[in-house]
Amino acid sequence: MTRIPLALTLGDPNGVGPEISLKAWRALRGAGAPFVLFADPAYLVPAAERLGLPAPVAIEAHGEAASVFADALPVIALPPADGAAEAAIASIDAAVSAALAGAVGGVVTNPISKAVMYEAGFKFPGHTEYIAHLCAETPFKGARGPVMMLAGGGLRCALVTVHQPLRAAIDSLTPDAVVRTAAVTAEALARDFAIARPRLAIAGLNPHAGEGGALGREEIDMLLPAIAALKDAGHAVIGPLPPDTMFHAEAREHYDAAICLYHDQGLIPVKTLDFHGGVNTTLGLPLVRTSPDHGTAFDIAGKGIARPDSLIAAIRLAAGLAANRAQA
Amino acid sequence: MTRIPLALTLGDPNGVGPEISLKAWRALRGAGAPFVLFADPAYLVPAAERLGLPAPVAIEAHGEAASVFADALPVIALPPADGAAEAAIASIDAAVSAALAGAVGGVVTNPISKAVMYEAGFKFPGHTEYIAHLCAETPFKGARGPVMMLAGGGLRCALVTVHQPLRAAIDSLTPDAVVRTAAVTAEALARDFAIARPRLAIAGLNPHAGEGGALGREEIDMLLPAIAALKDAGHAVIGPLPPDTMFHAEAREHYDAAICLYHDQGLIPVKTLDFHGGVNTTLGLPLVRTSPDHGTAFDIAGKGIARPDSLIAAIRLAAGLAANRAQA
Repeated sequence: MTRIPLALTLGDPNGVGPEISLKAWRALRGAGAPFVLFADPAYLVPAAERLGLPAPVAIEAHGEAASVFADALPVIALPPADGAAEAAIASIDAAVSAALAGAVGGVVTNPISKAVMYEAGFKFPGHTEYIAHLCAETPFKGARGPVMMLAGGGLRCALVTVHQPLRAAIDSLTPDAVVRTAAVTAEALARDFAIARPRLAIAGLNPHAGEGGALGREEIDMLLPAIAALKDAGHAVIGPLPPDTMFHAEAREHYDAAICLYHDQGLIPVKTLDFHGGVNTTLGLPLVRTSPDHGTAFDIAGKGIARPDSLIAAIRLAAGLAANRAQA
Repeated sequence: MTRIPLALTLGDPNGVGPEISLKAWRALRGAGAPFVLFADPAYLVPAAERLGLPAPVAIEAHGEAASVFADALPVIALPPADGAAEAAIASIDAAVSAALAGAVGGVVTNPISKAVMYEAGFKFPGHTEYIAHLCAETPFKGARGPVMMLAGGGLRCALVTVHQPLRAAIDSLTPDAVVRTAAVTAEALARDFAIARPRLAIAGLNPHAGEGGALGREEIDMLLPAIAALKDAGHAVIGPLPPDTMFHAEAREHYDAAICLYHDQGLIPVKTLDFHGGVNTTLGLPLVRTSPDHGTAFDIAGKGIARPDSLIAAIRLAAGLAANRAQA
């Protein structure tokens, strides 16, 4: 096993990030993969005091993280930032640089606030697109994403469209977009998840997957050609499946990931099955990246009640993905 | 307690209806509310023989059902029909007539096949609309449906739109449609489900319920006015809620039913939580009507492997609804 740590970003320092990072360290210090937080340590000290945990320990080199980890949360200290958004961005930049340099095995990101980021001039739709931008010049052998995949409760859902109004999302669907999402997902499942021959299930768009055209034509006009192209390329694909009957436990046995056409088609079943433990993974980038599937939760930040379940699941998953990718 | 039985329809005689009806009788003969099947008994005999169960017993009057029920499935014998669709329709007609006459406490319908029904000249989108048509002349005190509500896994979802292509469903959404669906649902929860002050949760349409307009305007332009109107009318309503985070166990504690805007928004969480035990209830009609939430399952009919869970749940629910309505 590698001693390379994972990188954890700060997220919005006014959200639950500092608290759940320390709680995740407390839960994983004995057993989990070591991780190192990229931030000005000052952001962590109040939360550590509130939780009665040791103060984070600044390290000079990533390689020191593993030995510090049993006793304190290791931190790569960044200089003080002008504000919350600037601190969040600096943490992402440093963590991604370390990952692309091979100094960390992957990046786990704490939640950021789009409103706060936009206020400070951030130009990207979200975390995922910004990280993809930072990786854009790095060579990558394979189908390039980013594709967003949510996992929880024994279900993995990769999304063809993500943060768009539902009407716009439907309008933007094309056979190519479905094929690209599915291809990135299949490659990532094989490379990063060590699933030898990944099986994909393509969700229909309409009730009953269109019922032969009586309830919509997208399955016939868009999804069947996409599925044919994927099969021609050698992928194991089923669908289009009726969306309501494809996510329960018995149905899930027939595939490794569902390809979902819009945000809520994939996120409703994942978050209904596993609200606290869901993990967001970005597929098809030159680095491993996961994140919890919740937001900054400003309303409960600093109260000591934020649950670290999703962040812990994200760290554990990233450790597994990094190990698989290192061997691939 | 009333000795009035429930009516059970035949459904498509070539589907799983005969088999699951007999299995439901076997499960409920000792404890459940008595029910009587409306059909030519010839449709039941082969399934009874395969299952090693007593042949159904024809009764003359609905009142005999309760005494027969412990020993055999009681049947109100209908004459032989010309075909499967005709047999299914005759059963629905007779069961609905009996319910409107007060001879049965409610109607539980076995699955029909739209393709088979249309072939035979059936003109209605489905069961629900046909039953609503049969009740149209019957006076009803209250907000009239039909509204389709799916229940399972501790979740109830009432649908504003049902069997339409997703684009068409979105296009057909209006504040009035949301208000009407919610009002019918609230009245039905109070009258039939004995929930004194029903709490409704209105689902958003877009990811994150539109995120203040950044991801779609329907929440602002359509749902907020609908929610204001519902509150003005005295209903307890929350929303619009982000669809992906409103269906898990903790979120469900805050409402008695979710008002969902399109088919899969409601059916994905219900069927993901409880694929085998989900029940469809028609709200806002002069009679109690429930059904299993699955189809005819022609592919497994006659093999003895069909699970009666959903039909049993539908019968149990109808018995409870009938008892509540009788006392209302």
